Amino acid sequence: MGSNKTSAGNFFEDFSIGQVIAHAVPRTVTDGDRALYTALYGTRCAVQSSDAFAQALGYERSPLDDMLVFHVVFGKTVPDISLNAVANLGYAECRFLKPVFPGDTLSSSSEVIGLKENSNRKTGVVYVRSTGINQHGETVLEFVRWVMVRKRDEAAPVPEPVVPELAKAVDAGQIGSALPEITPANWNAALSGQPHMWGDYEVGEKIDHVDGMTVEEAEHMIATRLYQNTAKVHFNQFSEGQGRFGRRLIYGGHVISIARSLSFNGLANAFHLAAINAGAHVAPLFAGDTVFAWSQVLDKAELPGRSDVGALRLRLVATKDRPCTDFPLKGEDGKYVDGVILDLNYWAMLPCT
Amino acid sequence: MGSNKTSAGNFFEDFSIGQVIAHAVPRTVTDGDRALYTALYGTRCAVQSSDAFAQALGYERSPLDDMLVFHVVFGKTVPDISLNAVANLGYAECRFLKPVFPGDTLSSSSEVIGLKENSNRKTGVVYVRSTGINQHGETVLEFVRWVMVRKRDEAAPVPEPVVPELAKAVDAGQIGSALPEITPANWNAALSGQPHMWGDYEVGEKIDHVDGMTVEEAEHMIATRLYQNTAKVHFNQFSEGQGRFGRRLIYGGHVISIARSLSFNGLANAFHLAAINAGAHVAPLFAGDTVFAWSQVLDKAELPGRSDVGALRLRLVATKDRPCTDFPLKGEDGKYVDGVILDLNYWAMLPCT
Amino acid sequence: MGSNKTSAGNFFEDFSIGQVIAHAVPRTVTDGDRALYTALYGTRCAVQSSDAFAQALGYERSPLDDMLVFHVVFGKTVPDISLNAVANLGYAECRFLKPVFPGDTLSSSSEVIGLKENSNRKTGVVYVRSTGINQHGETVLEFVRWVMVRKRDEAAPVPEPVVPELAKAVDAGQIGSALPEITPANWNAALSGQPHMWGDYEVGEKIDHVDGMTVEEAEHMIATRLYQNTAKVHFNQFSEGQGRFGRRLIYGGHVISIARSLSFNGLANAFHLAAINAGAHVAPLFAGDTVFAWSQVLDKAELPGRSDVGALRLRLVATKDRPCTDFPLKGEDGKYVDGVILDLNYWAMLPCT
Repeated sequence: MGSNKTSAGNFFEDFSIGQVIAHAVPRTVTDGDRALYTALYGTRCAVQSSDAFAQALGYERSPLDDMLVFHVVFGKTVPDISLNAVANLGYAECRFLKPVFPGDTLSSSSEVIGLKENSNRKTGVVYVRSTGINQHGETVLEFVRWVMVRKRDEAAPVPEPVVPELAKAVDAGQIGSALPEITPANWNAALSGQPHMWGDYEVGEKIDHVDGMTVEEAEHMIATRLYQNTAKVHFNQFSEGQGRFGRRLIYGGHVISIARSLSFNGLANAFHLAAINAGAHVAPLFAGDTVFAWSQVLDKAELPGRSDVGALRLRLVATKDRPCTDFPLKGEDGKYVDGVILDLNYWAMLPCT
Repeated sequence: MGSNKTSAGNFFEDFSIGQVIAHAVPRTVTDGDRALYTALYGTRCAVQSSDAFAQALGYERSPLDDMLVFHVVFGKTVPDISLNAVANLGYAECRFLKPVFPGDTLSSSSEVIGLKENSNRKTGVVYVRSTGINQHGETVLEFVRWVMVRKRDEAAPVPEPVVPELAKAVDAGQIGSALPEITPANWNAALSGQPHMWGDYEVGEKIDHVDGMTVEEAEHMIATRLYQNTAKVHFNQFSEGQGRFGRRLIYGGHVISIARSLSFNGLANAFHLAAINAGAHVAPLFAGDTVFAWSQVLDKAELPGRSDVGALRLRLVATKDRPCTDFPLKGEDGKYVDGVILDLNYWAMLPCT
Repeated sequence: MGSNKTSAGNFFEDFSIGQVIAHAVPRTVTDGDRALYTALYGTRCAVQSSDAFAQALGYERSPLDDMLVFHVVFGKTVPDISLNAVANLGYAECRFLKPVFPGDTLSSSSEVIGLKENSNRKTGVVYVRSTGINQHGETVLEFVRWVMVRKRDEAAPVPEPVVPELAKAVDAGQIGSALPEITPANWNAALSGQPHMWGDYEVGEKIDHVDGMTVEEAEHMIATRLYQNTAKVHFNQFSEGQGRFGRRLIYGGHVISIARSLSFNGLANAFHLAAINAGAHVAPLFAGDTVFAWSQVLDKAELPGRSDVGALRLRLVATKDRPCTDFPLKGEDGKYVDGVILDLNYWAMLPCT
């Protein structure tokens, strides 16, 4: 007698517009998660590294890295949203709304905001707005993502297509609420690793982050399990060995965290990731590959009513097995050049001094 | 001048019936251990993941995973009991008696309850009852295991054989003391990941846990060191490369934790491992292998005087490089089929709602 | 438009005698770091493992492992001191001055105390005294190291050579301040793992630590990132694959921690590393190699005004893929024999009972 108690995840025809899904499993994040995050990425941002540094600025204590919060909230959505996904297509309107500290408990829910069957009728695109909430019921993070999801049954009827209109970029007036008013005069640039503040960056400026980081199977699996992300493709060599790539696929968020950590060398004072405007996982990363990264300043913005910090809109590009001295991106044909694996567009906050 | 200060562990003739061994080293377990446990196994049980979820039920805070407690207590016994073991033969009468929280300090001791030389006179079986104690002197865990241990000297005289009588299964009346009275009405099944409560399972029911997890050398060594388990076979490729398997052997407890974590998919509300009745490590696991698992409900029990939770006696079978859709176990010859690596028999607690 | 905001590290001609460099990034160390340290090395010293054990002796709680403190302080010096280093040449006058507990924030600075260009004019030796400071401004650690650093420009003028005079060994009168007065009567030798106290060791005594530990790429990178050590050679297989060894080089401090952890078997009560007198990384370690270790007692010292603890000056030798039953060190030619990778000279503290 076999059981039907195992979850097979949702298929395209299981979703409906307006549907709200409360995701399992709530998670108390702690200093242990912080230590692992540091050990996995070598992240060095002073605000997230030191209670003393953060407190001097006005934080109650050192907050957790924004991408750690993202991964924990994202991970919860996987069993319900993307267990049967063919591809993670994009992110938009991602905003960090409250700082998260060790001891906070995060949970997550998603609302289906778009559905569009593909012409082959085998798959469809599901758009969800996912929300991370702390133990006080406050929203700490919100983002839209869309994924291509298999249909269980090709013949299943599907609703009229709904494709949400999404902002190309989060408006600068909508970011920064996760940041307490800080005291920029207490920002010790010797301790933060670099003298360049918000005012020192120019639109158009490109930064090669120089360093490279090779990824091992154990590392990306440890990371992805830490986020309680259950996507099968990351863990199961037995089945993946027979699949598309013959390899375990590395969680795309792992790439973002590596690239963001590499970007410290040139953006040491970009201490808060306030919003993700858009992101494309251009090509897969596999164990044994070495990740490099470069950034470009796309825009600068002052924040309404605040003179303590300013925002930079940054493109963060990651490559594999390809140094970024020549800022690789797209060819004349408009396609990403070989080696590019990530093209992320985000808002970072820097002190104004 | 060489020193004799290095411990060579105990040999079969060093043990005597009634002997009590206090094991080194006491260990304060923390949120750091919890984070690593999550990162190593991807465990998702809400009670052990979230302070808020646990507190709503009546816990003071989220307790540590039962198997983490087991591994820490077990690890301490290794240098004294099984450093010269040829094989770990079995477990019985394992009961979790008190919850363990971050900040608790665990220590461990063992009493020798059985000794039986093998007919070849080169080895013998040692039975010990091991006990894990917290900083208040309370027993948090107790279990019997038996191991085949080398003799230092084949000619050494040994005592008359004593083989303890061990329960085939822990009586349901003897389990559950590690569980505070909980409030099942506060069990949020959306957050715990699955609607199925104690009443929803039937004796005989089999569950294929579907997912597979590939194991890397770095992972099992990180885990085994976390437990301060010093068994040489797990760490030393130089000597193991010349040994029986040519490979480092993976700690059997690592397999149990992987299988238990995989079993979340189908048993999400089996939130407390109350007792281990029996366990056999049928075949060794090596790095690169992918672990799958399935479960069967062997028995159901109400707990005396409690209506908040009920117990399921479960068989948990793990395989390597073999999916469990057909519930592999034993062949017609009564032998385990190829690919089966673990056959565990335990009591789990689930809410009654 | 390329940016010049990336740090290329300092070259030989950038250093000047008396120069003081405040290093980024301050770091709050926590129970999470402790758990990872245990998981990476399997360290078992009771004082650093158990709050209860440490408190019985007189500590406020269990302090962090001395080498963890060393690595965190050392890691901060890398971007400024040794990013362009060809080789890490030596350590001297390293003293642990205050215990470090979870929750403390460490920062680090270095003073340039010696400079000597090499005759080839392509490189020079830089001597720095580095200091680790806690959030109260107290010095917790101090050490001298010297590294061979590339010149940016061979033709750059350099100052007159200054070579500091360094103590061959730290005077026993100068060590122990990181150790509170302990109550040796409360030292439970069953729990600490071994009966041998300070009085039981003799000068000249050699101890083979027996066990071996194989190292994986994921492990040494996780460790080195945990210490926020940014030295490129440890992480980037793409560039190292084309380099001297064709492999990622393992951080020398990782070797010290492995060897120190292996030395528990024979030196279980050497609970505090009070000073490092000298250290040579004789040969590089690579992933897949198995580390063994042996120790010799070089000297014994009582501490002025203290009868609770005594000091042993120890040689700690690590090898790779070579057991240490015959205590390998140097050949008749005075050169280290094949397989030796570390020759460390340090002061350890043991209880006097």
